[in-house]
Parts: sequence; C-alpha cells; structure tokens
Amino acid sequence: MERMATEAPLLYLQIALRCAQLIASGALQTGQRLPSVRDSAAQNHVSVATVVQAYRYLEEHGVVTPRHKSGYFVTTASRAKAAGVVRAIQHAPEVPKGQPDNAANVLERPAVSFAGYSPKDKDFFDNDRIRVAVSRAARLKRDTFTDYSSSSGTLALRNAVALRALHLGCALKGENIVITSGCINAVAMCLQAVTKPGDLVAIESPTFFGFLDLLESLNLKAIALPTDPRTGVSLPALQLALDTQPIKALLLVPTLSNPLASIMPLTHKRALARLVAQYQVPLIEDVVFNDLLATDFRRRAVKAFDSEGWVMTCGSFAKTVSPGIRLGWVEAGRWSKELSTLKRVQGTSTNAVLEYALADLLTQGSYEAHLRRLSALMKQRLGQARKLIQASFPVGTRVNDPPAGYTLWVELPGEVDTMVLFALCKAQGITVGPGQLFCTSHRYRHCLRLSFAGAWGPQEQAALTQVGRLACQLVEGLDDETSRAAMDASRMDFISKADVSAYDLW
Amino acid sequence: MERMATEAPLLYLQIALRCAQLIASGALQTGQRLPSVRDSAAQNHVSVATVVQAYRYLEEHGVVTPRHKSGYFVTTASRAKAAGVVRAIQHAPEVPKGQPDNAANVLERPAVSFAGYSPKDKDFFDNDRIRVAVSRAARLKRDTFTDYSSSSGTLALRNAVALRALHLGCALKGENIVITSGCINAVAMCLQAVTKPGDLVAIESPTFFGFLDLLESLNLKAIALPTDPRTGVSLPALQLALDTQPIKALLLVPTLSNPLASIMPLTHKRALARLVAQYQVPLIEDVVFNDLLATDFRRRAVKAFDSEGWVMTCGSFAKTVSPGIRLGWVEAGRWSKELSTLKRVQGTSTNAVLEYALADLLTQGSYEAHLRRLSALMKQRLGQARKLIQASFPVGTRVNDPPAGYTLWVELPGEVDTMVLFALCKAQGITVGPGQLFCTSHRYRHCLRLSFAGAWGPQEQAALTQVGRLACQLVEGLDDETSRAAMDASRMDFISKADVSAYDLW
Repeated sequence: MERMATEAPLLYLQIALRCAQLIASGALQTGQRLPSVRDSAAQNHVSVATVVQAYRYLEEHGVVTPRHKSGYFVTTASRAKAAGVVRAIQHAPEVPKGQPDNAANVLERPAVSFAGYSPKDKDFFDNDRIRVAVSRAARLKRDTFTDYSSSSGTLALRNAVALRALHLGCALKGENIVITSGCINAVAMCLQAVTKPGDLVAIESPTFFGFLDLLESLNLKAIALPTDPRTGVSLPALQLALDTQPIKALLLVPTLSNPLASIMPLTHKRALARLVAQYQVPLIEDVVFNDLLATDFRRRAVKAFDSEGWVMTCGSFAKTVSPGIRLGWVEAGRWSKELSTLKRVQGTSTNAVLEYALADLLTQGSYEAHLRRLSALMKQRLGQARKLIQASFPVGTRVNDPPAGYTLWVELPGEVDTMVLFALCKAQGITVGPGQLFCTSHRYRHCLRLSFAGAWGPQEQAALTQVGRLACQLVEGLDDETSRAAMDASRMDFISKADVSAYDLW
Repeated sequence: MERMATEAPLLYLQIALRCAQLIASGALQTGQRLPSVRDSAAQNHVSVATVVQAYRYLEEHGVVTPRHKSGYFVTTASRAKAAGVVRAIQHAPEVPKGQPDNAANVLERPAVSFAGYSPKDKDFFDNDRIRVAVSRAARLKRDTFTDYSSSSGTLALRNAVALRALHLGCALKGENIVITSGCINAVAMCLQAVTKPGDLVAIESPTFFGFLDLLESLNLKAIALPTDPRTGVSLPALQLALDTQPIKALLLVPTLSNPLASIMPLTHKRALARLVAQYQVPLIEDVVFNDLLATDFRRRAVKAFDSEGWVMTCGSFAKTVSPGIRLGWVEAGRWSKELSTLKRVQGTSTNAVLEYALADLLTQGSYEAHLRRLSALMKQRLGQARKLIQASFPVGTRVNDPPAGYTLWVELPGEVDTMVLFALCKAQGITVGPGQLFCTSHRYRHCLRLSFAGAWGPQEQAALTQVGRLACQLVEGLDDETSRAAMDASRMDFISKADVSAYDLW
C-alpha cells in the first residue's frame, strides 16, 4: 500500500534521539566531537541532509555546537539538555502512514449503530466519482492553494447551489449565497446574526438534538412547538407563541423534519412565510433533507414563498452527495451581508478546491438520477426495517412511515424509558437514539429514533431484532401480566403511521 | 482547457425553457401535446433522458401533465405557470466552467495590494506539490468522503502538528489537538470557550485588525497593552492591567507580532507563562508566524513554558504551506475538551482528505528546507522594499527591520493621516494598510502596514515608490516650509529599527 508520508522527519528525529541518548548517559561527554556528518550518514543508511537536520536540531536545543570546518561538539552542561531532547522526541507522536487513524476510536464505536444520522453506507455514494472530481479540481484550480478564496465561497459553487434551488422552487442569486462548513455551521451563523445571548428561539418538538446543543452553546433559550408527525409544526401554536412570547427567531425543518420526518403541506408553508413576514421575525429554514424527496413539488421550501427576505435558508449536500466533503450553504435573505461578514470575521473558512469539486458533482447530469436511486434504496430499506420492528418489538409499539430519509421514529408502549434501553443495547455493542435527546422535556422518553444510514446486512438486521427483544424484556419487567403469548400474537398487530399523531399537544 | 462541469443540467433547463416560452406566449395551448420525447431529442441533438428530465421539470411546475402512453399535454391555466418557469430559468445563474470565477471581484481588486496579509506570490509555494498531496489523499482516503471524520480532526494531522510543535519547544499530544478551519477560527473558539459577552480581553497595541473585528463580533471588550516593536507586549503594563481590570483572557502574538513583528525574548515568554498561571487567566497564543523564523530557539512558544495548561496555542500553516488549504489547529490546555465540543456543536467541520494531505506535506523532509528558502526570499524582498521606502518616502519616515515575515511597519512624520493616504493610493489602484485599522484609538493614524506577500516585480516596486510620492505630497501639504531639496537630501537619512520605539506608552 502506498505510504502517506515520507520517512524523513522520523529519521532525523531518530538520529537526533540516538545522539542525545549517548550524551544524556554520559557516553559522549562535554567537548567531545560527534561522528562526522558523512560517517553518520553512512552508518545510518540515510542522506547527509538528514544527518545535518538531526545535528541542527541538537544545536537548536543547546546540546551541541558546530565549529567551523571541524564538525559538531558536545556543549558544556549538555547532559540535562540532552535528557530533555530525549524526553521530547520519545514523547512525540508517530504520524500514521497510510493506515486508518481511528484505531483509538474503534473501541468506542459500537458494532452496530442505529444512532448516527449521517449516511455512511458505501452503497449510497460513489466515492470514486467524488475522488475524480476532487483530483480534477485540484489540478485545474491549483492556483487557489496560494490564495484565500472569496470569503463567501467560489462563485462556481454558489451558482451551482442557486441552480439546485430551482428544484426547491426558489429563484436565488449565487451572489447572495454564502458557502459554509456544513449546514449546522450555517444555522449557527444565522442564529448569531439575528439573536443575542438570552434570546428566545422557537423550535419543533421533537427536534434535532444538534440544534439543542447549538442553542445551549450560544446561550439561547428554546420554546418547543407541538409538531404533527405528518404536517409538521402547528401553525396555530406558532401564532400563539408569537403573540405571547418575545421570540427572536424560528429554527425549523419544514420538509422531512428530524426526527419525525414530517412534511408541511404547501398551504402551511405559504402560511408560515406570511406569518414570519407579518411578525417580522426571521425563519431559519433547514433544507438539508429536501432533495431526498422524489418531486420538486414536495421538495418546495418555505423560501419559495418568501418575497421580503425573512427566511434564512440553510442546506448542505451531506445527505445526498458526501457527508465527508463538509460544505454547506446559506441564503440569508435580508441578513445576507451579515452572514458574509460573520463567516469572514470568525474565520470559518472553506476550501476552494473542494468547492469546485462539489459544484462539478452537483451540475453533473447524473445527480438527479443518483437521488432517485438513493431514494428507492432507502424506501426499500426502511420498509424492511419496519417489518423487523413489527416482528420483534413489544405490543403496542408504533412507528412512522416516512416518505424518504434515513430514519424511523418509534414509540414504545407504556412507561418504558429508552435511556434504559439505550444502556442495555450499548452493553451489547448496539447504539440507538433515545427520544429524550430530541427534546428539553421528558415528553419523548418512551421514543426512539432509529437510523438506517449505516451498513444494512444480516448483522444489522439481527441487531435490530435484538433491540426489539431488549425492549420486550423492559416492557415485561414493567408489566408481568402481559404474557409472552399475548406479545407474540400482538407482533402482527402493527400500527400504521396514521396512528402516530399523539404529539400535537401544547 | 478541460471543463469543470458537464453540460447536462443546462441542457435540460434550456429545453424546458423553450417549451415554457412556447406555452407562455400562447403558441402551445391548453390540451395541446408537446413534441414526443424521441422527436424532441432528435431535434435538439440531446439524449432521450435529457428531454425526459426537461418534461419532468415542467410537470413538477404544473405546466404539463403526462398521459399514459400518449405523451405530455399542456395543462389548463398553464400560461401564467409557464411564464413563472421562464422567469425562474432565465434568472438562474450559469455555472462557470473551468474559468476563474472571480471576474466580479477583479474590478474591486486593486492593481497592486500592499494591504493583504496573506502570502499570494506564486514564488512562495509549490502548488503542484500540494496538488499531488491532495490527489493522493483523495485516492488513498476516498472512504472518508462517505463518513464524518472525527470532529476534532484526523489523528494523522493532529500528530503531524504535535511533531512540528517540537520545533516550538512544545511537547504536545496529538489527542489534545483540535483541527480547525484556520487560525482565526481557532482563536474565535478559544474566546468563546473562556469568555462571555461583555468580558474584557487584553490585546497588543497595535494588533491584528482581524482580532478587533472578532472581539466586536463576539461582543467582547478589549484593553490594548503597550507593545514594544522589538520585545513585544510590556509585562509591567500587563501585570498592572491584571491587578486593576477584570481581564478574562489575553490574546497575544508573542512571536512575530502583527503588525509590529516584535518577538518576546525567551525570558519574557517564561515570565508571561508564570504570570498567567499566577493570575489563573488563559493566554490565547497565536503561533502562526513562528515557523518563519530560522531557528527553533527564536521560534519557541510561550506554551513551551506552560506546565499547568493556562496557554491555548493556535496555529495554522497558511503562512508556510498554503493559504488556500484552510486548516488550522489549537491545543487549548485545560480547555481541550471544551474546544472539541465547541467545534462539533457549532459545526465548523473540516475535511479529512485535506487533513491527510496537509499531514503529508508537513512530514515531508523538505518542509524545513522550504521554510529556509521562504525565509531567505522574504529577507531579500523586505530589504529591497526598505531601500525603496528610504528613497521615496518623506523626511523623518521610520520603518522597522523585522527578522522575518511578510510586512513592514512604517511611521510617517508629523500629522499625516494614513486614511487620507489610503484614499489617495486607492484612487491610483494601490492599497495599503492604514495604522488606524490596528488599534481602537487614533494612536497609529500616522502609521502604515505594508505587506509584501503578493507579487514583487517592477510594477509593485513602481507602486511602492508612488505611495512614497503621495506621502510626500501629503507631508508637503501639511508643511510647506519643508523644501523639496531638504526632503531629497533626507531620503538618505534612513532611520533604523532601533529608533522605532515610541509605542510603549501606557
């Protein structure tokens, strides 16, 4: 396997280490001459330059001193200094060469994860196509390595994003789009642009736990709005909140919300756009999932109905092109200038070569075909997962039936605490997303978000069945009267998404 | 020249546009059939798939409707919808293909810039070497495209940074280092970790204007400390400030400060480390310029003397490897965990392929040789620039003589306002850095920072002479008694850096 780094830096440090050890141990004493550069190079089978680098390193640290045309000599009081050099070099980390560097993480990583929201399965994306785009951009745009790109991002990507936004029903201008380090980073900057610490932000309930972490990190307060699993945030509840609370911003995922996968009907989206204009309050709209839907009609963003710039739309292609490329975007309406300034001032810079590569990938004719393939794959997979849940989870379990996306939302019966279930699963190398993560209250402590964005094979399917078994044991522990037989029978009594509507309570 | 993107997306939109125009104009009326997919493909010399994509787009927008086995038909009331589609597509930006996308910026860019601090000259870096490293990392690490990397960065780069930190006298552990979107981003997160809005932060005077923007953006207050052009921030002044003011953090560039290029002596660095431990106040240390110095002795960071973790050290390789790669790092001492969390929560994510490429570049044996070459190049260039300043700037001009770096600090005589000089230069297509940018007061309104990080040829040398001429005119306008002859004579009367010490006033 090709190595990622040359050996040179380690070599010169190894040679410096050996000399320092000799000096620290007293084997080489003050005033003694080090082996000549040529001799040392020959002995160690390295180049003269490497030995010079080693001796210079020792010189810098006061261990040796060069004399004109005579070589390097051990300085006075050098034993303590040499011992310091030995410690520093021995303490230095080795740079892994061409091997996975996550060895330390592997132990922490579960065997099967239903918790992560990022699409990881190798079937989803064509890494080779991305590699080609990156290498091509690196070749054609190598000049950008020696220049800071425009702080808002390269116009190529901003225009490609604007072109894609046509599919969300939005006519955006590339010049008003700012490229970010991803969608969460875009949301973070929007919040910073329109709020100050202590301000109140309205969110969905349940919502993406990353938003809750972010609000806390920015010292913002959240008001959670009831959210219907099919039609999204409750507009009457929102209006009531706007009438009675000093809300400074809304942070919503109107299309394929996370974790419910609800989609606001177009009439609701239009009404929401009217509402934020009427109350003059910014809506931060996350459209990261919209492209996963099959039609432009369903993909349409609230931004499409925003004529006055009250909607700040944030997206990325982490769910559709590559989670690892780490680029997102924002069109911040009347706050476009502020966003551009924030990005520059806070130094959340992005790389031009990756931007060109992503622009290239987005404007390839195959992008829509790729979306359709991805959509079909996930539809099939979520169907299989729902069947397994039906077969293995306790009586009375309910699960949604999302039109797209990577996750299912599961509601367990009774008083089951999914934090306990999480601990039981973790002990067996399986992670799940307990409902409590998605809310500031205990409202969803009996719920689970299960993600199918990772690999999906026999091992994962067995793990899902095992989660169901553990959930059954929990339920049995709670209610011993429920007999095993009854449970087995009820597993066929699967309840469809139409029944999952118990959330729209204020 | 190879094209960056395929034509497909524009093609299908062009076909959709033509159909929509026909419908909007009434040429194709409600109920009429669109040309068959095959005919249209043949007419337009495109593939059937492209026409299908165009018709599907029109269908999504309610303009046409498909009938089973009969083709696509114009829907009722479609003229207004078609007009909307025409507007949306005509409004859509074109994605530039393989051409520089900064055409819009060119007009705003000056012909010659002495203002930018980022090294841009093509002579500085080997873009091809960077390209090779990026392409190789993209090939070997393509799996990272479908995974979020560790939020703190890949261990390969974190260890490579720790290895480089040996040259700053620091024994750091890779696992405690967080990779960031650049040095300013690292500083921004350090400030967020240790302060809250309204807090007071001690800075150098003069300081990097980016720090002033950042403090303002985070709603922090600054107290500017007197800074000696040779030995850096005044420690007695700092101690007085710590004794009398509620200072929550220090933000300093102890080695090659910006704009003065001062270097704290090692005794001062050691005393500074003791001081922050004694007062238990975090020091955010920017080491972005340290590697530009020739010896490890002068490069040594304050962090090298920090045994209790009060120093948060921030760096990047924007000044030594590539300004465009956009990666930095931080070792935040006792706040390491907080930094790692902040990066994850605020989504300022970094790309794993670029991280591997940078690790590769840093651990190549040639990196130190490259630094020496860069150093020699800049030493020569700054010497030439000082000579030109000596020959063309007004009587009494003083300029520093930095041991390394990309900039000179110039002090003009008398009451000259360099904001006026800035305006005069700008009108002639030349930009300079007026002193007022580097301070919150008017203390440096007669000063200039001149950067030589861009190209350096006859055009730039003539431009520098022209800046001197304009400065002379300004001085003459202020003081008509100074005769032209006297000025010419005095141009030889160059004052060395030993005289530039008028700043350490509290």
